[in-house]
Amino acid sequence: MNFFDAQQIPLLCCMNHLEHIGIAVKDLEASVALFTRLLGTAPYKTETVESEGVTTVFFDVGNTKIELLSATREDSPIGKFLQNKGEGIHHLAFAVEDIRQSMQEKVDAGFTLINPEPKDGADNKIIAFLHPKSTGGVLTEMCQNKN
Amino acid sequence: MNFFDAQQIPLLCCMNHLEHIGIAVKDLEASVALFTRLLGTAPYKTETVESEGVTTVFFDVGNTKIELLSATREDSPIGKFLQNKGEGIHHLAFAVEDIRQSMQEKVDAGFTLINPEPKDGADNKIIAFLHPKSTGGVLTEMCQNKN
Repeated sequence: MNFFDAQQIPLLCCMNHLEHIGIAVKDLEASVALFTRLLGTAPYKTETVESEGVTTVFFDVGNTKIELLSATREDSPIGKFLQNKGEGIHHLAFAVEDIRQSMQEKVDAGFTLINPEPKDGADNKIIAFLHPKSTGGVLTEMCQNKN
Repeated sequence: MNFFDAQQIPLLCCMNHLEHIGIAVKDLEASVALFTRLLGTAPYKTETVESEGVTTVFFDVGNTKIELLSATREDSPIGKFLQNKGEGIHHLAFAVEDIRQSMQEKVDAGFTLINPEPKDGADNKIIAFLHPKSTGGVLTEMCQNKN
């Protein structure tokens, strides 16, 4: 398989666009100040998703969003990520039109779902994650708007 | 500093938009096939930057780009990253209009440059990196179009 042969791979349900990048942070207040200085823009939204044990803060960077993720409890997915890997990029999230169709197509294409069913995410989304062992080390979220 | 106080931080030179996301890969051919299936789009460009010891392959994901990065030699920055951290997201790159102005503003704002001078990057860019120890664990590139 070389670069040009890749043009021949049958394309499945498209990841429409990069909806956001999730970044795991330990100290949310300090990180909000840091990323405001880094990105040159202030955050526009904060939201806690209790079911996932996460508080999020969103920045608009023009063509996509940065989502800071902080744990509300140590045993949450973000809490465990921070303990194992420390602060840094947690996931890439791509917009899809039909989450269940996209999940099935990715499974059929050889990718591994972390959970068999979609979950509620922040920002009015239904989300599903592909395991990084199946995606070149990149934790990949697919997200569909709820309405 | 809470979420709303961040609105009061003086904003410096803006990161215009997320130009691309760099992903470090070991086996470029296998990864091109994998990301073509994952992203639902084929790559549109490949380029080697000999000075950085890297071969890149670009995917257009609608609103931004994914840049696969593979080492042409083990002692290159990507070669060392792969040895230390394995495959996965390497950096976020933001477009800026004036690389030297942006570098100075970020230094003045407390961020640390990896190199004091900009370098040539792939895709007709002049680039500079901020050290992840100063950016919440996120290796951050600023890139300016050469023309």
